[in-house]
Amino acid sequence: QSTVTLFGGADLNYRSVTSGANKFSGMAQDGIYSSRFGVMGTEDLGGGLKAGFHFEGGMAPDVGTSTGFNFTRKSTIGLSGGFGEVRFGRDYTPMFTVAGIADPFGTNGVGSSYNVANGVTSDGVIAAAGSFATAQAAAAATTPASTVAAGAVYADPNAVRANNSIAYYSPSFSGFTVSGMYSFGGENTNVAKKAGTMSSIKLAYANGPVSVAFGNQITKGGVATTSAADTEKWTTNFLAGAYDLGVAKLSLGYKTDKLSFADDASVKSMIYGVAAPMGAVTLKASYVTAKADGDKMANQFALGAVYDLSKRTSAYATYSTLKNEEGSGKSVGSAAASDFTGLRSKGFEIGVKHTF
Amino acid sequence: QSTVTLFGGADLNYRSVTSGANKFSGMAQDGIYSSRFGVMGTEDLGGGLKAGFHFEGGMAPDVGTSTGFNFTRKSTIGLSGGFGEVRFGRDYTPMFTVAGIADPFGTNGVGSSYNVANGVTSDGVIAAAGSFATAQAAAAATTPASTVAAGAVYADPNAVRANNSIAYYSPSFSGFTVSGMYSFGGENTNVAKKAGTMSSIKLAYANGPVSVAFGNQITKGGVATTSAADTEKWTTNFLAGAYDLGVAKLSLGYKTDKLSFADDASVKSMIYGVAAPMGAVTLKASYVTAKADGDKMANQFALGAVYDLSKRTSAYATYSTLKNEEGSGKSVGSAAASDFTGLRSKGFEIGVKHTF
Amino acid sequence: QSTVTLFGGADLNYRSVTSGANKFSGMAQDGIYSSRFGVMGTEDLGGGLKAGFHFEGGMAPDVGTSTGFNFTRKSTIGLSGGFGEVRFGRDYTPMFTVAGIADPFGTNGVGSSYNVANGVTSDGVIAAAGSFATAQAAAAATTPASTVAAGAVYADPNAVRANNSIAYYSPSFSGFTVSGMYSFGGENTNVAKKAGTMSSIKLAYANGPVSVAFGNQITKGGVATTSAADTEKWTTNFLAGAYDLGVAKLSLGYKTDKLSFADDASVKSMIYGVAAPMGAVTLKASYVTAKADGDKMANQFALGAVYDLSKRTSAYATYSTLKNEEGSGKSVGSAAASDFTGLRSKGFEIGVKHTF
Repeated sequence: QSTVTLFGGADLNYRSVTSGANKFSGMAQDGIYSSRFGVMGTEDLGGGLKAGFHFEGGMAPDVGTSTGFNFTRKSTIGLSGGFGEVRFGRDYTPMFTVAGIADPFGTNGVGSSYNVANGVTSDGVIAAAGSFATAQAAAAATTPASTVAAGAVYADPNAVRANNSIAYYSPSFSGFTVSGMYSFGGENTNVAKKAGTMSSIKLAYANGPVSVAFGNQITKGGVATTSAADTEKWTTNFLAGAYDLGVAKLSLGYKTDKLSFADDASVKSMIYGVAAPMGAVTLKASYVTAKADGDKMANQFALGAVYDLSKRTSAYATYSTLKNEEGSGKSVGSAAASDFTGLRSKGFEIGVKHTF
Repeated sequence: QSTVTLFGGADLNYRSVTSGANKFSGMAQDGIYSSRFGVMGTEDLGGGLKAGFHFEGGMAPDVGTSTGFNFTRKSTIGLSGGFGEVRFGRDYTPMFTVAGIADPFGTNGVGSSYNVANGVTSDGVIAAAGSFATAQAAAAATTPASTVAAGAVYADPNAVRANNSIAYYSPSFSGFTVSGMYSFGGENTNVAKKAGTMSSIKLAYANGPVSVAFGNQITKGGVATTSAADTEKWTTNFLAGAYDLGVAKLSLGYKTDKLSFADDASVKSMIYGVAAPMGAVTLKASYVTAKADGDKMANQFALGAVYDLSKRTSAYATYSTLKNEEGSGKSVGSAAASDFTGLRSKGFEIGVKHTF
Repeated sequence: QSTVTLFGGADLNYRSVTSGANKFSGMAQDGIYSSRFGVMGTEDLGGGLKAGFHFEGGMAPDVGTSTGFNFTRKSTIGLSGGFGEVRFGRDYTPMFTVAGIADPFGTNGVGSSYNVANGVTSDGVIAAAGSFATAQAAAAATTPASTVAAGAVYADPNAVRANNSIAYYSPSFSGFTVSGMYSFGGENTNVAKKAGTMSSIKLAYANGPVSVAFGNQITKGGVATTSAADTEKWTTNFLAGAYDLGVAKLSLGYKTDKLSFADDASVKSMIYGVAAPMGAVTLKASYVTAKADGDKMANQFALGAVYDLSKRTSAYATYSTLKNEEGSGKSVGSAAASDFTGLRSKGFEIGVKHTF
């Protein structure tokens, strides 16, 4: 007995963002849901064993995905049974999924905690500009993990998903689960055996109103853009918990990004969230604050409401305001033409999402 | 109760085109149908309200869509009910759909009226070469409406479809319908608030054998390729009518394109069409004639036959001949290597289309 | 009565390849199956006539098909009936399908016979470096057959599939079938009428335990990269046979590639194969040896096992070792950073494939 399912959806909105002197408004997307299209299915192999696949790509419905459709949101096959599940391909990292507990906005839209709590900006505190490269030698048969462009902003190419991964997801033991992923980066050559590799683990507990999870992730690379190296590492730890009071769900997250380079730069973020269901409407709020190398860097306050017309169709509105300290250039929305380092960024969006 | 439908099809043919001294022949596509692949569906929300989506991309079956598949033919979500329908995303403009009434060839293949009646060539009459740009600043989060490449041919990037659009389609009032669309272009920045924006309306009446429609559309941009501007506009008016006599359907269209730049260039086109069903065969003919700034520019005569093997599968053949006046370089088919301004272009194609 | 079917699957593995001094290992794909996604269907037109379509694109599940999804594996429509089938679009060439009889590894993975028996390397024997170009003039409306990059390795752009093709497949006459394909290359211009065109035929006999097939294919092009020409040709002949003893299936193939350029270079390959089913496990072995211009060039020995968990899901392991003579640079796996001309290439992979 087998199933094949088509799925996807789109989220379009009117967005207005002001970042320092830079203003823009117009149609945008993905305020509460990442637009997508995919196909997935399972096959019953008998004896409790199942095989499955999941191919999923991002949609840009505002312009018709004009840069070309692909399946980089998720491309996996796996085997599952009483032992849990083993999965191969391109997939979310276990560490990233911790964000889903902490952030009532699900890391989407102008209210996303990842506007503040992701990446390490080379603000005043972090002196050295450069980039964190994890590229494999060009000879590799498969595409390596994304190279980070040279410049002043550091990012972990595996912050959300990883290529060439093998992952294990345990079954639930009285609410406890463990998952781990290893990414080969690209096909490793004799140049630098561990360049671009990543390991990510997650320990989670979910029972009744309580959800708690901890994730740890390390990507190996080098501070260079042209050659592969495995001498440096990017370490992320993410601890989150949520408690559902019924009238409201309270959540909390603590995320740290530590670099072995750029003067051992680090960013530590706190995420405070609340989501209160009131019939078909859910009110959400979050506060995110981050320190770079121990000094205040930026904070963001977000307020939102979602009105469910059905399980598949919702209308929503979100407002957020982000305050940058001197040297920080975080934004609630699109990249801005003019510099707004140290300035405020504010955003509003109202939209509709429909899934199938 | 919900539905999800896969749909699409392909149209392949043998095409032979001669434009001036330039000749080419071989396999081509889309003689009577634009090859495509898509998925669409609706969800019943109760109370007469429905939500729906439509993702559709073009196919190039002759080479396997080698430049990459996307969903730029249509990417929308919408809500419909007794009030009509509201739709968001990338979609056809209401004005463009008027062409479907006037042109028995449906703007496809060597017989398409749009070989003559679309775009404004910088013929002898139109002195200034240049381009009509509607690009947003690069900082915009979403892709702007297509920039028109610098050169001698002017085109409206929204001639057929528009990005970042919001549209309303009324229900039918005794056969009368009205529809309107506004496109934000890209996400507007503080550079030029209206650059790339477009508004398009359509008034239509359809009852028994009669179909009449009028469309008006204005795109704002600038005569430049590197910066966004909203000082210039491209205005299109399209009036079309058709009457079905039973033995044949007669159609007529009058389309004008007016530019606020390039010496206020204008092109006015007349489309005359007839389609006569004879059992499984439909014979079609059209004559299109256009004037640029009041002077004769080009005319085209097309003759075609479609043989329906079923509702989904058809064979067809089309012949067309196009006469350019001095300074005009219109063609019935593919772009040509050699210049044929002022010369004749002739084309023939025979093919098969199959849809699902 | 009509059908529309979604299909596809993924094959991911751990691969380790050593070619001369170059070593790499990590996740790779397509060890026994080419990862893909597609949609196909048929329509019954009555009277024994059917129409059908087949759109299929390759997947790179290790990185999520990050370079963009397309339908270059196959994009066809066709009509079939008692007369056989006529098919249009981008498709496998009849000659290539002969390989399926000779090679127990199905031209996939480190054991593929095409590691040795495809392309003509400019080894010591073949003096002139250069390329075989089949590009149409840039004015062609449709994309021409792939241009072969300038360099030291010659390849036939139609070795596996052809663009802009029209093909005929006969019904079976007591096991005998004949098929033929003509490719227009691109849309031919007045520059070189036959540049990029290809003709391919296949004669086959299959009855009980016996399969025999012969294919012949000629691509016309020129030794140049910038202009289209039809003065040179690449000729491939492929003869293969297989006999199923029950305990094992033995297969044999003889393939010759002859160039009308580069000093009339030629490569002649022999493929010996065996596949022995043992319950859910199939053991496979092959030996491939090739001569360039009459001198020994390279040989490869491959050994593999496939364990079928179901019709759709399999695990597998393959080992292969390839010996290059002086001047030959063939590899069992990925392109290598360092030169290994005249050296040995060895590979191992272990993986899982799952289809739907």
